Amino acid sequence: MENILNTPLHDGFYMPGEFESHEGCILIWPARPGSWPYGARAARKAFVQIIRCIAESEKVYVAAGADVIENAREALFDIPGVTVFAAETDDAWARDVAPTFLVNGKGDRRCVNWEFNAWGGTYNGLYPSWERDNAFAKAFADDYGVPCYDASPFVLEGGSIHSDGEGTILATEACLLSPGRNPGLSKEEIEGRLFQYLGAKKVLFIPRGIYGDETDEHVDNVCAFIKPGEVVLAWTDDKNDPQYELSLESLRVLERERDAMGRKLTVHKLPIPDVPVCITQEDLKGFVFEPGEDVREAGERLAASYVNFYFSNGAVIVPAFGGDNRDSDRRAAEILRKLCPERRVVSVPARDILLGGGNIHCITQQIPNRAII
Amino acid sequence: MENILNTPLHDGFYMPGEFESHEGCILIWPARPGSWPYGARAARKAFVQIIRCIAESEKVYVAAGADVIENAREALFDIPGVTVFAAETDDAWARDVAPTFLVNGKGDRRCVNWEFNAWGGTYNGLYPSWERDNAFAKAFADDYGVPCYDASPFVLEGGSIHSDGEGTILATEACLLSPGRNPGLSKEEIEGRLFQYLGAKKVLFIPRGIYGDETDEHVDNVCAFIKPGEVVLAWTDDKNDPQYELSLESLRVLERERDAMGRKLTVHKLPIPDVPVCITQEDLKGFVFEPGEDVREAGERLAASYVNFYFSNGAVIVPAFGGDNRDSDRRAAEILRKLCPERRVVSVPARDILLGGGNIHCITQQIPNRAII
Repeated sequence: MENILNTPLHDGFYMPGEFESHEGCILIWPARPGSWPYGARAARKAFVQIIRCIAESEKVYVAAGADVIENAREALFDIPGVTVFAAETDDAWARDVAPTFLVNGKGDRRCVNWEFNAWGGTYNGLYPSWERDNAFAKAFADDYGVPCYDASPFVLEGGSIHSDGEGTILATEACLLSPGRNPGLSKEEIEGRLFQYLGAKKVLFIPRGIYGDETDEHVDNVCAFIKPGEVVLAWTDDKNDPQYELSLESLRVLERERDAMGRKLTVHKLPIPDVPVCITQEDLKGFVFEPGEDVREAGERLAASYVNFYFSNGAVIVPAFGGDNRDSDRRAAEILRKLCPERRVVSVPARDILLGGGNIHCITQQIPNRAII
Repeated sequence: MENILNTPLHDGFYMPGEFESHEGCILIWPARPGSWPYGARAARKAFVQIIRCIAESEKVYVAAGADVIENAREALFDIPGVTVFAAETDDAWARDVAPTFLVNGKGDRRCVNWEFNAWGGTYNGLYPSWERDNAFAKAFADDYGVPCYDASPFVLEGGSIHSDGEGTILATEACLLSPGRNPGLSKEEIEGRLFQYLGAKKVLFIPRGIYGDETDEHVDNVCAFIKPGEVVLAWTDDKNDPQYELSLESLRVLERERDAMGRKLTVHKLPIPDVPVCITQEDLKGFVFEPGEDVREAGERLAASYVNFYFSNGAVIVPAFGGDNRDSDRRAAEILRKLCPERRVVSVPARDILLGGGNIHCITQQIPNRAII
């Protein structure tokens, strides 16, 4: 692919909303022993359920390392529309390591390859080496045949941004201003990079994300566009919950701000699970951590949120946590059903994905269709 | 992928029959102006029909160059199970440039990357440069995640061999002993290479292929296994046809020889089209040849044969030539219907593929399933 010298903003490319039409979705078959306990067996079952649901309405591309690719093929062989391909990665977070796809409204697509440093590099990154993850986006773009802008050395993960497709980017200050990302850049300079590489006009910064989120509080776990002008926000009414202050601060910002088109935002509250989801001693025994890797501890509260859903063409695929959270699982699905009447809402048991540190949105990355508007 | 030091024969891998179960099929989107007249428009229509038929019973992987990949995606977007991916090639002959896949009967797969020199290199090759075609097999194997043996510098094309999956390889002397392939090797040494790289025990050499076949008479245009012990042979009863002597010579060999298992072969005659298929002045105007490329001439007889079919899991996809050959098209389909009662026989108008120099078998390459026997 020829080098692209300009930036997406200059060339008329922008990031569409996830709620717009997709050609497909990228995932990575989970294998890392420090993320997925007990040989990733339970996680893979959850991945299969999610892939099956996505494949009903879009193509699915599943990357797998050489040592697990035949396992992936075997698990997925009966799902039409799934392509398994070989790629070595450090873990399974396609949202953060796959390219961010852009369109220009004239039928062309391009994408962005961000610098990836495992959510904080040597400052507070989660694993000691991330070269394979960092190489994934460019390799995928080349294989897929979509020209790729190189945003390096600007550090960003796909999970730290949402776009409304009309010029507004949603992000958290906690993540984008974290010293582990781009410590040499001011907030204004970071905004400038998002304008340039996402073809955006305004960045809506909310201060915080989900309590305990080890990504420095990615926006995709706390707040998401349902459509232009409307967001869902992870919420709790329990003033004693550490999430309360975080969500309240963000709500105040969202109620005050306007988007790139000058609209006031409608904010729908999406309550977090009733009961904290925590790591058990039994979970812990299944992990195998390597030196320098962030480790888990028994009793640790996981960053469980229903906002970490994926919009496929036909469905909203929402995490469910089960156990004492069956009621809140149902409540979350109900709220999304009302907000997205044109899609099927599918709850997938996802505690086994949360154990890895993220959720359904974190393991997926959409490839938009070539929009012509 | 780690280097593989031994050979398939040593490691217990062999080439299954094409009539055995497939996981998928590889094709390349046609674009070369010296092969596909009038911007490949008619050829692409034929490719779409073939891909549609294959995709009914196996996955289809379609490689496309950067300049035509969005055209390929548009043409194929509505066919479930088709993956379009980016790869630069010199032309569209997946049979000859994609890897040859092997199995070991224990659930493992590997493949072979042969040296490719455009059917004869500087001696009588068909295009002046073939680096991109030669690089395709290894790149595909890596992307697909199947370990790949490197047979280089041994020159071979997938269309010059057939396997019965039980140790017998079928080939023509005209091709394999041509000075444009491996001039430094004796016939016995060439057989030895086929034993090593295809896990075979016997090479059944027939002398000749189809009259005028510019591949030096690939076996896949003249003779194919229907199952172990049974072949179809392109045939004519017209003693004045230049094909008559060629087919008769091959028939004599096939009737005399035994396969690797010691079986006598059953030979089914598959008559060639009644009327020679020739290049017209109108066809010729649509080609754009580059310097050093083999050119076509008006009136030139093309190497039309019904043996150049593809066995998909569910079908035999057979070329049809139309015009004055409607009767022979029907006759060929009838013969294959009787020989393959468990498959659908689908005739696809393929004159526009033949114009490129090959046919349905030449543009496809199967990926077998991981056999466990």
